[in-house]
Amino acid sequence: MTTPSRLQPQTGTAFYLNAGQTLRVIDLQGEQVADLTAFARADTTEWLSSGRSIDYANTIYLTKGHILYSNRSRPMFTITGDDVGRHDFLLTPCSRETFEIIYGNTAYHPSCFENLWQNLGEFGIAPDAIPTTLNIFMNVEVGRDGTLKILPPLSKAGDALTLRAEMDLIVGLTACSAEMSNNYSFKPIGYEID
Amino acid sequence: MTTPSRLQPQTGTAFYLNAGQTLRVIDLQGEQVADLTAFARADTTEWLSSGRSIDYANTIYLTKGHILYSNRSRPMFTITGDDVGRHDFLLTPCSRETFEIIYGNTAYHPSCFENLWQNLGEFGIAPDAIPTTLNIFMNVEVGRDGTLKILPPLSKAGDALTLRAEMDLIVGLTACSAEMSNNYSFKPIGYEID
Repeated sequence: MTTPSRLQPQTGTAFYLNAGQTLRVIDLQGEQVADLTAFARADTTEWLSSGRSIDYANTIYLTKGHILYSNRSRPMFTITGDDVGRHDFLLTPCSRETFEIIYGNTAYHPSCFENLWQNLGEFGIAPDAIPTTLNIFMNVEVGRDGTLKILPPLSKAGDALTLRAEMDLIVGLTACSAEMSNNYSFKPIGYEID
Repeated sequence: MTTPSRLQPQTGTAFYLNAGQTLRVIDLQGEQVADLTAFARADTTEWLSSGRSIDYANTIYLTKGHILYSNRSRPMFTITGDDVGRHDFLLTPCSRETFEIIYGNTAYHPSCFENLWQNLGEFGIAPDAIPTTLNIFMNVEVGRDGTLKILPPLSKAGDALTLRAEMDLIVGLTACSAEMSNNYSFKPIGYEID
């Protein structure tokens, strides 16, 4: 068993993942969200699509056995393991504007969006190309009237989501910077590639 | 009162909409879905974002008074009128692959995706740039377990959704081609620009 790589609180990274490799995202301490997005390495105008993935799975809660699709309806990942069963694919990565519009905070605040574009930029991905992310461990409930509740994650220390790459990918991953998503405590995220 | 323009069943269009102009999308016969997307005319890498709009409205059912945001968190539209109160912003426009994956249909089938990219192509928008659309009048229910139900639209003949443009836009609009979304009967969509 290797020691997982560690994303410090409110940081992010980007890396290559080859077809057939497995990415394991681990909530090291519990109640921490990780934002994930991906682009096809062969052509970065192919990107991970929340809409196609939700449509083809016919559920907003994607879990073990579900496929995550690109905007071209091609499989990018298969979820091969899930200790939690609650991840959000509705909301965009938190950004400076998120903190301004939702939290009324106009000062600088670290954000998943900044942590994604800064790291993905090294792979030629522009900020405008970042789509709605898979918000791993994020606990969003939808009321019958459509209203969203952002609740503390259900993940406990050591819980993981495992994804197998179905094509050669460029992946962006963060330890989320938004207070509400992480039950008001910023923690690290672990990840392993096999 | 002008006569609305008419989109024939399973067709689409694209057009400019100036900041301050109003677009009224009308379900002429009832139970018909229209897919809508938009790009900033000044820079088409700015696009209508389902994730940002849902996040800032804190609901999946956007209606009168809600703002539809771009990927840059800038207002693109304000919804100024809504006779129905049920529109979907979770699912992508139906495409050839939708009919293959969900309906098991491998033959040619008209689709909102094709109708969008063919019409938006004239404005320089690539197929890969088309994001999750606002599926006007589409009646998607989310169960407590996250499962989606695609139900017949609640819209009756003459019901409309009205949107004010908050910036100069390129807009794509369709009369949806998917059986299930339209209660298994393809009908026209009307639209007016004031």
